[in-house]
Amino acid sequence: MSSDRPRGRRPGASDTREAILAAARQRFAAHGYDRTRIRDVAADAGVDAALVHYFFHTKDGLFVAAMQLPIRPAEVIGPLVAEGVAGLGERIVRRLLAVWDEPANRAALLAIVQGASGHAAAAAALREFITREIVGRVAGAVMADRAGLRATLVASQVMGLIAARYIARVEPLASLPADEVVPLVAPTLQRYIDGAL
Amino acid sequence: MSSDRPRGRRPGASDTREAILAAARQRFAAHGYDRTRIRDVAADAGVDAALVHYFFHTKDGLFVAAMQLPIRPAEVIGPLVAEGVAGLGERIVRRLLAVWDEPANRAALLAIVQGASGHAAAAAALREFITREIVGRVAGAVMADRAGLRATLVASQVMGLIAARYIARVEPLASLPADEVVPLVAPTLQRYIDGAL
Repeated sequence: MSSDRPRGRRPGASDTREAILAAARQRFAAHGYDRTRIRDVAADAGVDAALVHYFFHTKDGLFVAAMQLPIRPAEVIGPLVAEGVAGLGERIVRRLLAVWDEPANRAALLAIVQGASGHAAAAAALREFITREIVGRVAGAVMADRAGLRATLVASQVMGLIAARYIARVEPLASLPADEVVPLVAPTLQRYIDGAL
Repeated sequence: MSSDRPRGRRPGASDTREAILAAARQRFAAHGYDRTRIRDVAADAGVDAALVHYFFHTKDGLFVAAMQLPIRPAEVIGPLVAEGVAGLGERIVRRLLAVWDEPANRAALLAIVQGASGHAAAAAALREFITREIVGRVAGAVMADRAGLRATLVASQVMGLIAARYIARVEPLASLPADEVVPLVAPTLQRYIDGAL
């Protein structure tokens, strides 16, 4: 063992990636999701913005990596809304249950909810991210009037289903098979999406 | 100033009440809501069970005082369900919004949600309390089949409305006047209560 060997490693891709994520977490917490720009995160980390794009592609990809979200909402919601509003309520519930019923996803998502609940800044950034990347995408797909309000009503039933089934775990809803939950909740979402309000 | 004057006060009603509440908080946290009995709380506090009944009347009254809930759910839900299932969905939303739109109530209720989110035992006791005193009372009023499931579906939309409007505060739902929120959400609850599922 040579004691005069340098202790530190030369910075590599892994260190750069971690430095970007650390800078992103600080930026998102301090400025929220909407007001954070990739170029500012790059500057904070002392790298070129192109490198952030290389690693994380988009701002939502950077947020997903920084917060260790187990899924990328844009990738999940995009295909659902691309099929149009007919049956969208059912597709949302079905996909939501598939993601949350998977134990590894559920543990990761619950950890994020728990983490945000104790930190106002983290909660604010998460709220902006959900509003833009999930609620915003649903609102964009709604062709009926009051699209923004309709999307937040969808969000209210989605959040409530998560809270009742996965967080508070109230029975019998918590143990009901996903296939039986879908027809119970899908009509609620569909009415919020394109029904008479 | 006489330095040999006894420091402590003689125990009075206020001390006894506080001792009961401290014992209740410990019992509820250790054993949950359902398995806590008034007589055990009395024994822990070193008082007669009749005294606990004298101060707090019932177990739910004791829980409400111990957790400093700003309202007593049994008092709110009782009259709503007593009027029958017709229009129950609308009465629930209207009452929920009236309670939560009041700033003092909202601050107290948010503090309880926040407190429970960091403490598994407190969260479990709160969950049992909500299941029994709120969901259970709604289930008792439902005359349709699958009453328990229907009540938990009501709980899911109620929890989601609270989460979206008061915790995440997603717009435009967060700022919409209560009178406009009622007709949006009431049909969801009414379908869960007595609609075709």
